[in-house]
Amino acid sequence: MRVMGVDPGLTRCGLALIETAPGRAVTALDVDVVRTSADEPLERRLRAVHEVADEWMAVHRPDVVAIERVFAQNQVSTAMGTAQAAGVVAMAAAYRDIPVAFHTPSEVKAAVTGSGRADKKQMTLMITRILGLQKPPSPADAADALALAVCHSWRAPMQGRVAALDAQVSRSRAGFQAKVVKGRAAAATEAADAGRARGGTGSADQERARAAARAMARTKGVRW
Amino acid sequence: MRVMGVDPGLTRCGLALIETAPGRAVTALDVDVVRTSADEPLERRLRAVHEVADEWMAVHRPDVVAIERVFAQNQVSTAMGTAQAAGVVAMAAAYRDIPVAFHTPSEVKAAVTGSGRADKKQMTLMITRILGLQKPPSPADAADALALAVCHSWRAPMQGRVAALDAQVSRSRAGFQAKVVKGRAAAATEAADAGRARGGTGSADQERARAAARAMARTKGVRW
Repeated sequence: MRVMGVDPGLTRCGLALIETAPGRAVTALDVDVVRTSADEPLERRLRAVHEVADEWMAVHRPDVVAIERVFAQNQVSTAMGTAQAAGVVAMAAAYRDIPVAFHTPSEVKAAVTGSGRADKKQMTLMITRILGLQKPPSPADAADALALAVCHSWRAPMQGRVAALDAQVSRSRAGFQAKVVKGRAAAATEAADAGRARGGTGSADQERARAAARAMARTKGVRW
Repeated sequence: MRVMGVDPGLTRCGLALIETAPGRAVTALDVDVVRTSADEPLERRLRAVHEVADEWMAVHRPDVVAIERVFAQNQVSTAMGTAQAAGVVAMAAAYRDIPVAFHTPSEVKAAVTGSGRADKKQMTLMITRILGLQKPPSPADAADALALAVCHSWRAPMQGRVAALDAQVSRSRAGFQAKVVKGRAAAATEAADAGRARGGTGSADQERARAAARAMARTKGVRW
């Protein structure tokens, strides 16, 4: 699987491509940093980021694009521009029908270093080791984009397994509830038939039927 | 001039087109609201907003696109999506080489109602009157998009005049400073010549030269 990692930004936007193999093997294929000048109007900067990201998708044909999730709380002065850069890259992927995943900075840190609070130095060190690079990727945006891609390739199978388990549980639950509904209907029919057969007066049979209905109601009330 | 107004958003994005004539005459030509579902992934929603906005620019060929400026402080939960919607619309304009202007909500309110703190009802009332509409535009996003366009068409000429005045002041200042520099150089040369002519000892001439230099320094110190 080819994963494109994106560390969004207007001044510097990191782009990375890695190839994943079964297990946790990952190989860096390409990395780049798009720079735009703060002297340019916002819309030109967004266009520049979009152009390069779209070109990357056309050339590298990633199976998924993993982008850092931006929060409004962090660095208010640049957060909007960063979110907008993330937006135009995500949109470029949507136009190419490439799925997009967002990961928070702490998810990325936790996936790569084992700690959600790792600093930039630890991140760069670990990503250099994991990908077996000859020297640390620079600037930090390049390392972050690689980390995003690695994070996604390690989290995605786990998320896939969790989703599969969720689906399995939902199916089991639906099957169980269908059985309960069917059982309750059968018990009610049986009780009514028994009542009619005895001319509507057989109190022992009615009692049995009510007991069966109560039992089904209890079963139906079970939640797990 | 054709002005396209945009009230950005993911759930509802208002688009409006107005035609301006000399003076303050404005005519509404078109208005629409793009809606995207919160069930869709972010990148699909951004693509949908981009598609419609880009189609509008292709069909209506606006001379300028006026977009509401989004602040991170306002409604944190939706601010990022709103900023991203604004971003993809601005980017679409950049690809078509259409200039983009951003106006804050209070600039728009002040331009349309005379007060930066007008409420939605006042805004809708005023925009209905200004554009001579038969009924108030609905939903509010449509009214806001029209207001953005009206705000831009009324502010832009003023901003243009201010920019022209700024440029004129800069030119005058540059011309004055050039004269000062030239004058000081001439005074220094004159003083040196006078000093050399008297064999470097004429104290009265030196004193005069120093006084001239001091006078020039004072002139140079003038700021306006």
